[in-house]
Amino acid sequence: MDVKQVLCMSKGDGEHSYARTSTHTIATLAKPTIASAVDSLLEEGFFPCQLLNVADLGCASGPTVATFMSAVIDSVRKKCARSNRPMPEFQFYLNDLPGNDFNTLFKSLANFARDYESLSCFVMGAPGSFHGRLFPRNCLHLAHASYSVNWLSQVPNLTSEEGSPLNKGRIYISKTSPGVVKEAYLAQFRADFSTFLKSHGEEMVNDGRLVLILNGREDKDFASIDSYFLWEKLGEAIADLVSEGFVEEEKLDTLNVPYYTAASEEVRSIVDEEGSFRIEHMEIMKIDRAWPGEDPHSRGRKAASHARSVTGSIISHHLGEGIMDKLYGEKLPILIGDDLAKERRMGVSIVVVLKKHVP
Amino acid sequence: MDVKQVLCMSKGDGEHSYARTSTHTIATLAKPTIASAVDSLLEEGFFPCQLLNVADLGCASGPTVATFMSAVIDSVRKKCARSNRPMPEFQFYLNDLPGNDFNTLFKSLANFARDYESLSCFVMGAPGSFHGRLFPRNCLHLAHASYSVNWLSQVPNLTSEEGSPLNKGRIYISKTSPGVVKEAYLAQFRADFSTFLKSHGEEMVNDGRLVLILNGREDKDFASIDSYFLWEKLGEAIADLVSEGFVEEEKLDTLNVPYYTAASEEVRSIVDEEGSFRIEHMEIMKIDRAWPGEDPHSRGRKAASHARSVTGSIISHHLGEGIMDKLYGEKLPILIGDDLAKERRMGVSIVVVLKKHVP
Repeated sequence: MDVKQVLCMSKGDGEHSYARTSTHTIATLAKPTIASAVDSLLEEGFFPCQLLNVADLGCASGPTVATFMSAVIDSVRKKCARSNRPMPEFQFYLNDLPGNDFNTLFKSLANFARDYESLSCFVMGAPGSFHGRLFPRNCLHLAHASYSVNWLSQVPNLTSEEGSPLNKGRIYISKTSPGVVKEAYLAQFRADFSTFLKSHGEEMVNDGRLVLILNGREDKDFASIDSYFLWEKLGEAIADLVSEGFVEEEKLDTLNVPYYTAASEEVRSIVDEEGSFRIEHMEIMKIDRAWPGEDPHSRGRKAASHARSVTGSIISHHLGEGIMDKLYGEKLPILIGDDLAKERRMGVSIVVVLKKHVP
Repeated sequence: MDVKQVLCMSKGDGEHSYARTSTHTIATLAKPTIASAVDSLLEEGFFPCQLLNVADLGCASGPTVATFMSAVIDSVRKKCARSNRPMPEFQFYLNDLPGNDFNTLFKSLANFARDYESLSCFVMGAPGSFHGRLFPRNCLHLAHASYSVNWLSQVPNLTSEEGSPLNKGRIYISKTSPGVVKEAYLAQFRADFSTFLKSHGEEMVNDGRLVLILNGREDKDFASIDSYFLWEKLGEAIADLVSEGFVEEEKLDTLNVPYYTAASEEVRSIVDEEGSFRIEHMEIMKIDRAWPGEDPHSRGRKAASHARSVTGSIISHHLGEGIMDKLYGEKLPILIGDDLAKERRMGVSIVVVLKKHVP
């Protein structure tokens, strides 16, 4: 296993939103990984290849979809030029839950279609949960999941035998969470990620590549707040609302998010154990949560607005829509801003390239 | 070529809307045709078939999608049971323009997914125009287009060399339209339908089947109003609004719809000429536009409401949103109702099964 650590100082300008800059940064940083996966894929008997089936698992309404598809096409184009081969056709499957905004996704691809209209490139929406099968057997050559695998199929059971909440005052694993909470989260991630690998393993051709990007952690334990920074701050913001009487304490005590930030060791051990894939490449990317020279509280507002777009529906489902503006618009930006003013916080991403392995 | 005429007296109850009942009627009537296409498809070397790729071209937001998919699955199931073969996997591609409401379509399939959850059945949205390529080469086993091919890629040029409108006071071919209008419409249909056959011919495996249902006409010429009934009544309704001063005359004179109701002879000759397919089966279905025992004006209101859902966006684009309620809510229902009270009007549908033919 190749484990590299890349330290990235992002140079985002203040005009871009946190969401756009940070996801765009990662999508751009992942380009060489995708290029190298495509390159080795095409070296292994996939020529003459007439069709490349490619999936983006959990693509949402698409901020990074076009970047990903371009990365794939451009890599194939270079490879074909070098080896003097004709370009294959492309079929891109864009997946997310049936409730995802596919209308916006499809409309957003008009520019992409224009840029690549000289190619045979077909884009499909694939509605469904990536926690199970989505495609016919043996059809995918390349699949990609960017920050999707972090989302669990359900919140693990975090109540004691007597029925009382085990993770009081927190919404995710925190420094003070009891060991049983960490174990329950890891067990759920192990189950979900294994099913993910098995399901999509069945869908991939032999030697097909699965490129995963996950929010993760460096350490095997949860020592550093970096791996749960956003959930920690969101939990603190809700706790503030509890102490001010806007949210009942019991609501906070029973709120836990279906999300897990895995250690690279955990990812490796689950992949090895499940057996559908072999790890071809693994690296850890660290990205500063603040931008150099930007006011931390301005960054806090952008980060909170991004957090709302990603976590808002889960939180409002539990706490009600009425509290959302106060939570994401007032409390969270200040807590993030105050923290970034004092500390340097690094987001950790794990990038893994898996190769489909038929035993 | 097998040409049958089927006379269908629909038994729709008054509770159902015209749209639902009439499209549902045709979808149900087309079931045996689809079953027989699947049956002969599977007889021709498609066993052992592990995957059936099936497309629905121009499915809109889906009133008949589930009926179509069920018809395919049920036919395959019977065939597999008879020949003691395992069921294949299914990949259904649901196509319409990128501006189609795919969100509603995907959400509407929750019941379908539950009914068939024991099968490996994967549903994809395929955004794009069916007037061109949508899928990789050589991948489709079965495709289906229900009332899609009637829609032209553009309105034919209906202005004289001097730039004056050739189809004054009408929005489609009418009894009084000059011959040049009919010729221009047929030429556009010939070009579009040929491109359709060529494009989707490339996408189909050899011996694959394309099942088409078109609004059509029995006669080679446009003698009977049956083939242009709805457009005729809509044109009359707009002419009323012109005479009452709500719409400028010039707007009506320059409005023509991108739609064509083909004669079966025209369909046959274009298929033969284009050459990608051979006609395996062709029949004409006639459906009474009124329901027995129902008040013609009640039927008129339902028909006008259905017409609005299908034609509304084209008409409002040309005449403006402000006139729509008056047009579809007041004028059109009365004109349809008055006509149905006096005459028996039969809608004509052409059902064709084409077999992919490699020369």
